[in-house]
Amino acid sequence: MSNVFGKNITITLFGESHGPAIGAVIDGLPAGIPVDETYILKQMQKRKASGSISTSRREEDVPQFLSGIRNGYTEGTPVAFIIPNNNVNRKDYDNISLIPRPSHADYTGHIKYNGFEDASGGGHFSGRLTAPLVVAGAICMQALENKGIWIGTHIQNLHGIKDDSFQNKEEEIRLLNEKNFPVLNPDAEEKMIHEIEDARIKNDSVGGILETVVIGLEAGIGEPFFDSLESRIAHGVFSIPAVKGISFGAGFGFAQMYGSEANDPFGIEEGKVITKTNNNGGINGGISNGMPILFQTVIKPTPSISQSQESVNLETMEETELVIQGRHDPAIIHRARVVLDSVTALVLMDQLMERHGSLWFQEN
Amino acid sequence: MSNVFGKNITITLFGESHGPAIGAVIDGLPAGIPVDETYILKQMQKRKASGSISTSRREEDVPQFLSGIRNGYTEGTPVAFIIPNNNVNRKDYDNISLIPRPSHADYTGHIKYNGFEDASGGGHFSGRLTAPLVVAGAICMQALENKGIWIGTHIQNLHGIKDDSFQNKEEEIRLLNEKNFPVLNPDAEEKMIHEIEDARIKNDSVGGILETVVIGLEAGIGEPFFDSLESRIAHGVFSIPAVKGISFGAGFGFAQMYGSEANDPFGIEEGKVITKTNNNGGINGGISNGMPILFQTVIKPTPSISQSQESVNLETMEETELVIQGRHDPAIIHRARVVLDSVTALVLMDQLMERHGSLWFQEN
Amino acid sequence: MSNVFGKNITITLFGESHGPAIGAVIDGLPAGIPVDETYILKQMQKRKASGSISTSRREEDVPQFLSGIRNGYTEGTPVAFIIPNNNVNRKDYDNISLIPRPSHADYTGHIKYNGFEDASGGGHFSGRLTAPLVVAGAICMQALENKGIWIGTHIQNLHGIKDDSFQNKEEEIRLLNEKNFPVLNPDAEEKMIHEIEDARIKNDSVGGILETVVIGLEAGIGEPFFDSLESRIAHGVFSIPAVKGISFGAGFGFAQMYGSEANDPFGIEEGKVITKTNNNGGINGGISNGMPILFQTVIKPTPSISQSQESVNLETMEETELVIQGRHDPAIIHRARVVLDSVTALVLMDQLMERHGSLWFQEN
Amino acid sequence: MSNVFGKNITITLFGESHGPAIGAVIDGLPAGIPVDETYILKQMQKRKASGSISTSRREEDVPQFLSGIRNGYTEGTPVAFIIPNNNVNRKDYDNISLIPRPSHADYTGHIKYNGFEDASGGGHFSGRLTAPLVVAGAICMQALENKGIWIGTHIQNLHGIKDDSFQNKEEEIRLLNEKNFPVLNPDAEEKMIHEIEDARIKNDSVGGILETVVIGLEAGIGEPFFDSLESRIAHGVFSIPAVKGISFGAGFGFAQMYGSEANDPFGIEEGKVITKTNNNGGINGGISNGMPILFQTVIKPTPSISQSQESVNLETMEETELVIQGRHDPAIIHRARVVLDSVTALVLMDQLMERHGSLWFQEN
Repeated sequence: MSNVFGKNITITLFGESHGPAIGAVIDGLPAGIPVDETYILKQMQKRKASGSISTSRREEDVPQFLSGIRNGYTEGTPVAFIIPNNNVNRKDYDNISLIPRPSHADYTGHIKYNGFEDASGGGHFSGRLTAPLVVAGAICMQALENKGIWIGTHIQNLHGIKDDSFQNKEEEIRLLNEKNFPVLNPDAEEKMIHEIEDARIKNDSVGGILETVVIGLEAGIGEPFFDSLESRIAHGVFSIPAVKGISFGAGFGFAQMYGSEANDPFGIEEGKVITKTNNNGGINGGISNGMPILFQTVIKPTPSISQSQESVNLETMEETELVIQGRHDPAIIHRARVVLDSVTALVLMDQLMERHGSLWFQEN
Repeated sequence: MSNVFGKNITITLFGESHGPAIGAVIDGLPAGIPVDETYILKQMQKRKASGSISTSRREEDVPQFLSGIRNGYTEGTPVAFIIPNNNVNRKDYDNISLIPRPSHADYTGHIKYNGFEDASGGGHFSGRLTAPLVVAGAICMQALENKGIWIGTHIQNLHGIKDDSFQNKEEEIRLLNEKNFPVLNPDAEEKMIHEIEDARIKNDSVGGILETVVIGLEAGIGEPFFDSLESRIAHGVFSIPAVKGISFGAGFGFAQMYGSEANDPFGIEEGKVITKTNNNGGINGGISNGMPILFQTVIKPTPSISQSQESVNLETMEETELVIQGRHDPAIIHRARVVLDSVTALVLMDQLMERHGSLWFQEN
Repeated sequence: MSNVFGKNITITLFGESHGPAIGAVIDGLPAGIPVDETYILKQMQKRKASGSISTSRREEDVPQFLSGIRNGYTEGTPVAFIIPNNNVNRKDYDNISLIPRPSHADYTGHIKYNGFEDASGGGHFSGRLTAPLVVAGAICMQALENKGIWIGTHIQNLHGIKDDSFQNKEEEIRLLNEKNFPVLNPDAEEKMIHEIEDARIKNDSVGGILETVVIGLEAGIGEPFFDSLESRIAHGVFSIPAVKGISFGAGFGFAQMYGSEANDPFGIEEGKVITKTNNNGGINGGISNGMPILFQTVIKPTPSISQSQESVNLETMEETELVIQGRHDPAIIHRARVVLDSVTALVLMDQLMERHGSLWFQEN
Repeated sequence: MSNVFGKNITITLFGESHGPAIGAVIDGLPAGIPVDETYILKQMQKRKASGSISTSRREEDVPQFLSGIRNGYTEGTPVAFIIPNNNVNRKDYDNISLIPRPSHADYTGHIKYNGFEDASGGGHFSGRLTAPLVVAGAICMQALENKGIWIGTHIQNLHGIKDDSFQNKEEEIRLLNEKNFPVLNPDAEEKMIHEIEDARIKNDSVGGILETVVIGLEAGIGEPFFDSLESRIAHGVFSIPAVKGISFGAGFGFAQMYGSEANDPFGIEEGKVITKTNNNGGINGGISNGMPILFQTVIKPTPSISQSQESVNLETMEETELVIQGRHDPAIIHRARVVLDSVTALVLMDQLMERHGSLWFQEN
């Protein structure tokens, strides 16, 4: 199911970049979960374009709830909402249905849908479709926080500039989640912003690596094989446009390690089983072990750049030059961060349901 | 569904390392697909332990088909098979239900299943459970080859030793798929085997990176968002024990690139749209673009090593030393390769069904 | 998935009777299916309350499409639409959250959702939620008609008054589908309408049996066991409020027959295999046999009646009398008919996809 | 998923009537559920052919468990088992792949699978495939009984001979579940057995109506719309060969009732909300209301009869006479009863998981 995701909690996405509205339906949310619109808007704010490091397309992105929420709580029935598209400029995209933008979905969408697709602004493939994910994720994230589970994401690496590592403290995540540009080390932050502005000036774009941590998740969540925590998180995360890789714990670094270095020794701390290192990113055999869940996601540079690029005319089947009009982001990695948090929250909430049932979320 | 995977074609896995048998049920396979047992056994051979670089547990691993195949063709009804466990030695594992092996699933399984699990040899979490995946994958791989789609995997990196890159030729993949130790460059092969033997002598283990290529896959396969080719492949691949990361095309290398370097320019070759580079690994917007699908998977070092390790006694809740008995692999990456091929074949076949329906596989 | 239905084509329902809007998302519809708004509105008209035999709540019920349709064709991406609720009167329902209406979902919804539900007008359980099903079904029905598959439903029995049997001709179904009160025999129609008006005068309500036929469906559609045509149709049909039974072909009449009477003899007609009787309603072993699909659905009398009824006060836990305010239908069976057609169309289209793939629907 | 059923608990069926074995995999069963083989064999006994009222094909039908059960408890990992086919006689079915048996799945299977199917004894469509359902159902039924939920089924009507109605007492169900021929009234039982023997002498067969009751199910189980209790039960029940209809509570009798007769008034009994009648069969809006769940299932007469029947030769496409060889049941309704109980248990257990999670089943 292409646009439906989840098992006990499902999200169904819809909309196109230049259609009247985008939105989603979240089904299976337990009744009685508090829904705080301020919280949702704070999350949406992190995804918004702002300043000179983002596209000049600006949208209000205030979700209009159609069902499933009453008096500040989920009802238990489907939560549906729409986000109107206001700042639409179709004529910027007049040519791309014939001359596909490199590394966008214009060409593959055209083949898949035989020309019936709405290519304008990327249509259904647009990064705008991540806005409903953030709304849904915000509801789940708040429910998880009420259960002592905290999710945070920082830019570990932006075009080679690196941030500090997580200390895995709740306070650290709280602070990080207040920031719109999610970096732990202020010097790194300054350099990264400068790097993005520099890319913009060059009519170019940059990407990087996001690192996500989850603390407070109990041991025993996940499944062997096909519903492993890694499988489900990866399934969700690869739905985010521009993601091209994900790794857990030591990730691709495992290739350089001996088993004796890679294994996480067990220990006892305050009467609880812990591991003394966390190379496995809090997951063994697909199931959480009580340590922080840690994973890295690579975000490719935004494919929309203002430089002239090589493309083809699908009608004449000849090679041609393409200069993309429209409004572009020199980087989306800082905006993608809250999408990562959101997808992670959706997946974890879904998997917690299997163990605890829907009533558990009403308890305190 | 923890042990059920797929949409139009599903695989249901079962069994434990030291139970009477492991196996799987494949449902939804189109009728009329040729099933060649020689082909299946050749694939199984690649997964088998052999020589000094693998565990001394040796299993025949000949699947016994119970249903769904008649006169060398699939019937269209469920294909079920079992693989008996012959070489079982439960007493090697007497202690691990109380003293979990670091970086195995003993502890997380114990928490999840509250002590009801069969921990012997890793139980249901054992790497043995990948044998049924290979049987299922072999049937799909052969069906795909009949459609001109070829899948191959080599060891790109073993504990720092690197292989050559793919040339993306059908002949190259055919040759690679004849080898039990899957490396393109013979010098690299020799060094890697030596490195594994060296790890064995040190009572240690090593991992590395597998790279998989798919050639001949038409453009237009996959879905936007949650059933993107990347999402589905990653979902399947993270089901394989020891996998801790996956990336597509330039993967984590995207973090160092400008958009102008990362984008794949379009061109025309023999009247067909191609891309002049393949940084996106043949996938744009979750959908195949007709270029080779390319992805990398990191395999952590086998967690079973013969050295003494730190663990805890779950009954007394005290720290303790653990020396794992039993038979271990100093590396499983060369054996994991055919599992990668198999999972890839399952995912691709499933996604091809959505576009072409089940009847398509009977056509030539 | 409570509010998500289907496999290759899914419908996700949302909304509440007195919320701002209801709607649905249809995912997986092939690209290039013609969408004729006149056709949709004609179908919606059949579901609308009208005249003295229906509730006085009148809604425009014009769907506003948000995505997935362009230039009169499906794009292949999710089709989302909303239907605003205009004629809302919440105060009619002030008491039902404490004093549940007999044979409605007020009590069960209250228990399931712990008081967080929106009970007004039945909330999410309202018959209004069938309006989005009709929109979705209309799109599918038109696609099926383009493939020569026709679906029609008549009132076989209304409170004991019986209609004629189907002749299974395309022309008969075309005519039936033009009518808002779906009865084949004009005398029966007159009597039924009179019976409904009589029930209204008595402050009471009536139900009956709908019979649905599908002609033109090829043999070979459906699956053994859990995705049998009967299983999938029944699953969909029981989602319709007030449905309490479904039977195929001779249905409950099989209980009185010998096998020699019940079996449908095979024959050859115009070079094609047919059955000489159709007691099995066109389905053997869960799979279509090329004969008309025939099934009966019982619709209980509308539970909303204006008479005083026995209920309980959920706060004081005492028995009490309840007089339901609000606007009621003395019968909904004639309005339910198009919902039956719609659900049937959704199920058939989904199952046809498995055999033919999504491209098939673009062919003529 | 044709042969996979369920959401949190799934059953995957496989096998053919004359293959080496049939079986199933049950995934998602919570850990720690007691599994009593005596209980399972008692259930299997009810399904077995015995005496002159059943086929002369006799099978031991003792399941061999391959995984998921240890020391008498479920482990939490997949429970897989096979049931060998011992008493196989393929030559009885030599002709049916060309000359399909009326009202069997021979013809539809042939069209669907293009001749690749195993038609012998009905192949995958055989009633034998219900044996694994009974094994799976037995495990679930016992878990439900431990939670105070009791399921029972009697023959309400056999070829016109009627049994008494349920009194909905636990003791009544316990007694009924001890009987192999499930009838409440001993006189009716005698008449029914005589009627079956009479049909056998006539080389004919009879069917009837089974009625199933569930007592002890709490209110609040089920979902609105597509996962309504009725939808899920019907989906499962229509998977059983020979089922052609299902109705809940007053069922098709609703067609003759006024709303004022059909509605179930609420009342208070021992401080609990009850309904004073149970025309809705314990379900409102798709959700249990705490009253007994009650439904009726019609079983068509066994299509295998020894009389000569009209069929066609699929090779020559000419009409022909067919006399079915092999061993037939003059009635299967008494054997089908335990299959009904089993499917009901599977569905209820799955739906209880959504509300209570998997841990709940370990509590007492």
